[in-house]
Amino acid sequence: MKTVGVIGGGQLARMMIPAAINLGINLKVFAEAEGSPAALATTHVGNYLNTHEVKDFARDVDVITFDHEHVPTRVLEEAQKSGTPIAPSPEALTLTHNKIVMRQSLAKMGVPQPLWGVVEDVDSRKEVISRVGGFPCVAKKPVGGYDGKGVRIINSWGEIEDWLAEGGVLVEEKVPFTRELALLSARRQGGEWVPWLPVETRQVAGVCSEVIAPAPRMSEGMVQEAGELSQKISVALEIEGVLAVEVFQLDDDSLVVNELAMRPHNSGHVFTELSVTSQFEQHLRAVADLPLGSAAFTSPAGVMVNLLGGIESGARDRAWEAVPEAKIHDYGKAPRPGRKVGHIVVVGSDAEQALAKADHARSLLTPRG
Amino acid sequence: MKTVGVIGGGQLARMMIPAAINLGINLKVFAEAEGSPAALATTHVGNYLNTHEVKDFARDVDVITFDHEHVPTRVLEEAQKSGTPIAPSPEALTLTHNKIVMRQSLAKMGVPQPLWGVVEDVDSRKEVISRVGGFPCVAKKPVGGYDGKGVRIINSWGEIEDWLAEGGVLVEEKVPFTRELALLSARRQGGEWVPWLPVETRQVAGVCSEVIAPAPRMSEGMVQEAGELSQKISVALEIEGVLAVEVFQLDDDSLVVNELAMRPHNSGHVFTELSVTSQFEQHLRAVADLPLGSAAFTSPAGVMVNLLGGIESGARDRAWEAVPEAKIHDYGKAPRPGRKVGHIVVVGSDAEQALAKADHARSLLTPRG
Repeated sequence: MKTVGVIGGGQLARMMIPAAINLGINLKVFAEAEGSPAALATTHVGNYLNTHEVKDFARDVDVITFDHEHVPTRVLEEAQKSGTPIAPSPEALTLTHNKIVMRQSLAKMGVPQPLWGVVEDVDSRKEVISRVGGFPCVAKKPVGGYDGKGVRIINSWGEIEDWLAEGGVLVEEKVPFTRELALLSARRQGGEWVPWLPVETRQVAGVCSEVIAPAPRMSEGMVQEAGELSQKISVALEIEGVLAVEVFQLDDDSLVVNELAMRPHNSGHVFTELSVTSQFEQHLRAVADLPLGSAAFTSPAGVMVNLLGGIESGARDRAWEAVPEAKIHDYGKAPRPGRKVGHIVVVGSDAEQALAKADHARSLLTPRG
Repeated sequence: MKTVGVIGGGQLARMMIPAAINLGINLKVFAEAEGSPAALATTHVGNYLNTHEVKDFARDVDVITFDHEHVPTRVLEEAQKSGTPIAPSPEALTLTHNKIVMRQSLAKMGVPQPLWGVVEDVDSRKEVISRVGGFPCVAKKPVGGYDGKGVRIINSWGEIEDWLAEGGVLVEEKVPFTRELALLSARRQGGEWVPWLPVETRQVAGVCSEVIAPAPRMSEGMVQEAGELSQKISVALEIEGVLAVEVFQLDDDSLVVNELAMRPHNSGHVFTELSVTSQFEQHLRAVADLPLGSAAFTSPAGVMVNLLGGIESGARDRAWEAVPEAKIHDYGKAPRPGRKVGHIVVVGSDAEQALAKADHARSLLTPRG
């Protein structure tokens, strides 16, 4: 079996380890520090901005993939020259490096998006604000944002003076969405493409709080539209691995694309318990160019809730006793306010019941929120 | 979270790694050699017969448990003196070290068993063969047998002359069973006890070939009888961890105990995909004295088939393409005739359909059997 190298030692790399063990794939992780969530499979601790280190790591593996999208294109292109394939490709990853590039690329594909423009100087402000429908609108730093960081809803340019001083800012219409969905799928070289059913994501303060799978109240037509949308992006970018497309659902049930991720994604954690094939297994199969697994669900419904801040170790026993069906995933991370330190999945015949159970377990585990 | 130390680096230790990662438990494995199936979590390579090595290993963990039952009682008792708990206890493990001790202990508990006796010398032969109902009967070496090794169906004493020369031999009636079941459960210190539903096991040449879960055609009364039987043994032995009770079902649907294992067991692999809580997770929770998880099934049925000999790497792609819902587990072991190198689980609404799929995948993976 192949050796897959993962750059980044976070919880996504950590959760690839169980999948690799079951598949018999050899997993090597390039982590930034000792004691990372993926420490068990870490074979190199170093700096992913250092081309030489990444090239050395690449020599020891059959394919390189990622726990995060922070590795610069120049580093990836150098690593690729050593002959080791990179999945997804450095070209595809440029969309996740820069939100303006993402908007431009999606526009070329003809994918529905919020109205958008780039404010580069004082002259462009009037044209852009008119194009996106006026204030309030959404301003995004093109590079480096995550979990609500780098995103502001603004009513005046003064609210992003600090960003404008640094360079261009992406400005988008404030979409009047009815809810948010995530469309996850996997594609491998050669074109095999397998989607999971769409899931509903619920955010609190810009951070994913819970995921309901499958997304309730989806007509067959909506599922089909969602599938066509994510397949179009997968094919256009020749994705190798998991693609997560975060979309807004509008009043008329149409979908517009909010964000992309080209790796396992928080919105897909529920598949570990709910689907025949988890997103971590599917990602490894895709990047190692193995046949993809079934994405069918084995239970009618499942929910995931995130654990933020820290897990109280005494509380864990109470949570398990209260909710024996709660699957508590602990990322082994030090507590910090707002930090994603774990998640809970509950599957069952009814999503609302499962959510009530997961919420109850969460309230016991993270009493201070 | 606690650190669990596992003695033995085989596939059972390997399959504890995913459970440990999800739970946030720190797992350390004492393996016999480099490159074992559990190499990823191996922190010590050595000889488990060496008391000093085992004691050193014990000092680094909060509790010791096992991948196999080959560690002698004297080594365990010495390790226990260092203050590290051992789960299950050395006393309970004596039953798995010696089949005669097991029969004696089960008899004291009043658990139904095949008729049995111990042939120690020529004088005892007549009494024992009369007690077990004559030839053919089953002869078992008391120590060291597994997967059909150390077990012979005999029609004369001459067929076990080699064993008799070494010492006492356990002789049992050849039970006219209609099928074999396995009763798996977990118990932790303090008494919490959680059973899975009984499963049906099918052997070929003394080796488990497939497992059907839940066992078909089980009345409520039979499930209850099975539960009482395995709970009686768990409580009597104060088991900490998973207990597997292999039983014969007789014509009148009554059950008699064939063998015991005090660790995750081949017959419970199907729970990884079928149950809310896998046997590996439940074992870790039990030995770390954490609340046990739900053993409910998330699908109506599931089957497991063993992969013996070796997995052909080219065949893997064909198997996955033919059966996308097959969960192929590869233990990372070198091929050898008859060796358990992996298994396949398929879950679904119908056990027979699932078995047909799993069998098809197996036929593609191990074409030479």
